[in-house]
Amino acid sequence: MINFRPIARVIAVLLMLIGGMMLFGIPFSLYYESGDFWALLNSGLISIITGGALWLIPIPGTTNIKKREGYLIVALGWLAMVTFGMLPYLLSGVIPDVIGAFFETVSGMTTTGASVLTDIESVPKGILFWRSLTQWIGGMGIIVLTVAIFPLLGIGGIELFVAEAPGPTSDKLHPRIRETAKRLWQIYVGLTGLLCIVLLIAGLDFYEAINHALTTMATGGFSTKNASMAYYDLPQVQYPIIFFMFLAGTNYTVIYFGLKGKFKNVWQSDEFRAYLTIVGLLAVIVTLAVHNNTDLSWEKAFRDSLFQIVSIITTTGFVSADYTSWGNALTMLFFVLLFLGACAGSTSGGIKLIRHLVFFKNSFLEFKRILHPRAVIPLKLNGQVVTGRILTHIIIFLLLYMILFVIGSIVVAALGLEFTTAVGATATALGNVGPGIGGVGPVDNFAWLSPPIKFVLSILMLLGRLELFTILVLFTPYFWKSN
Amino acid sequence: MINFRPIARVIAVLLMLIGGMMLFGIPFSLYYESGDFWALLNSGLISIITGGALWLIPIPGTTNIKKREGYLIVALGWLAMVTFGMLPYLLSGVIPDVIGAFFETVSGMTTTGASVLTDIESVPKGILFWRSLTQWIGGMGIIVLTVAIFPLLGIGGIELFVAEAPGPTSDKLHPRIRETAKRLWQIYVGLTGLLCIVLLIAGLDFYEAINHALTTMATGGFSTKNASMAYYDLPQVQYPIIFFMFLAGTNYTVIYFGLKGKFKNVWQSDEFRAYLTIVGLLAVIVTLAVHNNTDLSWEKAFRDSLFQIVSIITTTGFVSADYTSWGNALTMLFFVLLFLGACAGSTSGGIKLIRHLVFFKNSFLEFKRILHPRAVIPLKLNGQVVTGRILTHIIIFLLLYMILFVIGSIVVAALGLEFTTAVGATATALGNVGPGIGGVGPVDNFAWLSPPIKFVLSILMLLGRLELFTILVLFTPYFWKSN
Ligand SMILES: [K+]
Ligand SMILES: [K+]
Repeated sequence: MINFRPIARVIAVLLMLIGGMMLFGIPFSLYYESGDFWALLNSGLISIITGGALWLIPIPGTTNIKKREGYLIVALGWLAMVTFGMLPYLLSGVIPDVIGAFFETVSGMTTTGASVLTDIESVPKGILFWRSLTQWIGGMGIIVLTVAIFPLLGIGGIELFVAEAPGPTSDKLHPRIRETAKRLWQIYVGLTGLLCIVLLIAGLDFYEAINHALTTMATGGFSTKNASMAYYDLPQVQYPIIFFMFLAGTNYTVIYFGLKGKFKNVWQSDEFRAYLTIVGLLAVIVTLAVHNNTDLSWEKAFRDSLFQIVSIITTTGFVSADYTSWGNALTMLFFVLLFLGACAGSTSGGIKLIRHLVFFKNSFLEFKRILHPRAVIPLKLNGQVVTGRILTHIIIFLLLYMILFVIGSIVVAALGLEFTTAVGATATALGNVGPGIGGVGPVDNFAWLSPPIKFVLSILMLLGRLELFTILVLFTPYFWKSN
Repeated sequence: MINFRPIARVIAVLLMLIGGMMLFGIPFSLYYESGDFWALLNSGLISIITGGALWLIPIPGTTNIKKREGYLIVALGWLAMVTFGMLPYLLSGVIPDVIGAFFETVSGMTTTGASVLTDIESVPKGILFWRSLTQWIGGMGIIVLTVAIFPLLGIGGIELFVAEAPGPTSDKLHPRIRETAKRLWQIYVGLTGLLCIVLLIAGLDFYEAINHALTTMATGGFSTKNASMAYYDLPQVQYPIIFFMFLAGTNYTVIYFGLKGKFKNVWQSDEFRAYLTIVGLLAVIVTLAVHNNTDLSWEKAFRDSLFQIVSIITTTGFVSADYTSWGNALTMLFFVLLFLGACAGSTSGGIKLIRHLVFFKNSFLEFKRILHPRAVIPLKLNGQVVTGRILTHIIIFLLLYMILFVIGSIVVAALGLEFTTAVGATATALGNVGPGIGGVGPVDNFAWLSPPIKFVLSILMLLGRLELFTILVLFTPYFWKSN
């Protein structure tokens, strides 16, 4: 028996929340006289009233949440937010078709940043602010999910590396999680505000600064400019964005330690060290290659390279330069980077480095095990032993991810995409990155794709964002069997 | 301390063996007066004399073989066979450059079947016979490795599914393995002879029949015709080839049971049932798609579809039709099929179905485990429990395979290949299939690739054929540390 009462309660709160946030676009609408006042007001009110009504409907049940209710809250909550999040686009007529609006909203809420808008700068300012806000809301949602919900559901196998301590005991679970979530939100809000100020100092106006601050900290990548970050070809804008994208891809626990001055704890994170190393190494290699293949200056080659590496690894997806114009090798490299992801416990999407680390360390140990079959050779990460149970779960995640990539590619190819575009679109959707390769490269957008392809890519974005298992488990018989 | 005596002994025998087999081309050379007599004779004698000399050199050591000697025998033995196997091409001038001859020989010995020859029909008949023979020798080598060597080395994690019984006790290991290997060789030789007769009846001359019989049973795919199997556009040729390709991809233990009339044992093999099911399902889907996308008759659409599915899944690589001309979806599908492979314990290359099965079954169970974290939910295959140790090993294999695919793709892209060709060439080399997609599709060949790319693809073929670990383990520090 599924207990629907808590599910309805959570959805009601979520709807009222996003309804309220839609209204935040109204000041911009009025200031810029962009004519989207009524669309925003109506969308906000519809969401708030629907949420309120759902709250008031007396649904029988208890407040007791078990695993199955947990999964349904995540899946249905996300669905409700996306459904109502489409309203500003539809009511304003900015995106008149439902599939297009669905794609744009899913792309926002999942912090993917793939867009069907062909002329972003002509979109009314209030709607455009809502678009940026969908990413920021999605990023906040992911922090809650990673810290509070996924560990309870046993999703992802990365719970060990997200929490600060080995694991709370069940009786003091709630206060601790609430405390942690609150702290992380403070960091999220604080960094967003800080970036906004930095961008104001760099010369952006308030509207541009707040929009880009919101979508940077969410690793979202929506821009208010058609050329994305290439519009701001200035070191004083792009270097801060690089730094904050990097922060946004860092485990929030590590940031917390950093803010507290506990740099020893920061350095003890195997994932953070790997993150720094990978970004550093790739920056050197790609800068050399870009300087060699183009006639850019060293500074510009370095800035473009570092920007695109950090943008893709953190799955932000801002575009400062077209990496598919840098030659075959770098196109291939950036395609592979679509599968990386930054740190667990951040707003970054994709596979995430911790899973790659577990896999690589264990693969290496596997050779030792082959040579010494009787020895017990455990896998350690962050100084802790990774149990066989978690190891299996992480490895299965990696393979499921690949399978979904393969199935997704076949489906979108069957729907008409040629090879490079098909794998590029699938990889970037599943990884919540934004730009891909082929016909959905950094300087293209997703408007030209057919509605069925947009729908498939939207599903892939949701699967990727919710760590695959959360959605897939709903389609297994085990879920629906009572007990 | 590595004991080099047994290593040298095995290599000596291998060299004398392949030297002797080079001479088998001489009758064809004389009969067709193709002018390659001296090239074959000299190649054969050089190999035999080198092998004989190595046998006579007194190398200190015992006959004792431990794991490390086992790995070195496999790697160095393969290397020696390839090095001397190049001689007929080089001495005859058919392939004058060393990298080209290396590629063709590796492609033969690994049963890949990718070719640098642009006009196969102009190659002297004796050399061409040697080319087919390299695949047949490679296929025979793989049977020995899978049955006798890999289980001892703990490679691949598929030992459970290859041997007939749960596992021999160590004291009676040798007689049992020798017995099994002998029986499988008899099947291999017998089926090759049978196919040769069938092709003779179908109307091929003896030379064509024996060549195609050799390369079919090895799942090799070298043809004596420029158009490969599309040259023989006849049901009475192509259906038997399909049937024998399917057999060649079947676990030899299953074939043995079939020959003994023990059909219950055949049916108990989860992998064989999956093999039949996948081929059957894909045949229906692809036939419908091909009939829809082309103006072929139903029979021809079915024959071409079934032929190409079986050819790619078994990693034979014969071409009866250009699957990249069947539209985006089927191009993508056939690209994915490059990663499948048929049954373990056959001459088929690639990942092989048993590993996919282990992964899929376990992934499915993983959802059950998430919902019931306290329950012990074991994975069973062929009625046996798959231990955590073997499961980890198989999953690591799958991921290592993907990593090698990714690294290979980046390297060949860096060497100049565009995206589709890069991933196509890497996938088909690693999977020992033959044809790929893009610039190395079914109607293309590998002659146009630069020498560095040919070298990288050759390494990938060897890695794939030797189940990754066998070669990779040599590059870990664990291998070279004494004890
Ligand atoms: K993104
Ligand atoms: K082959």
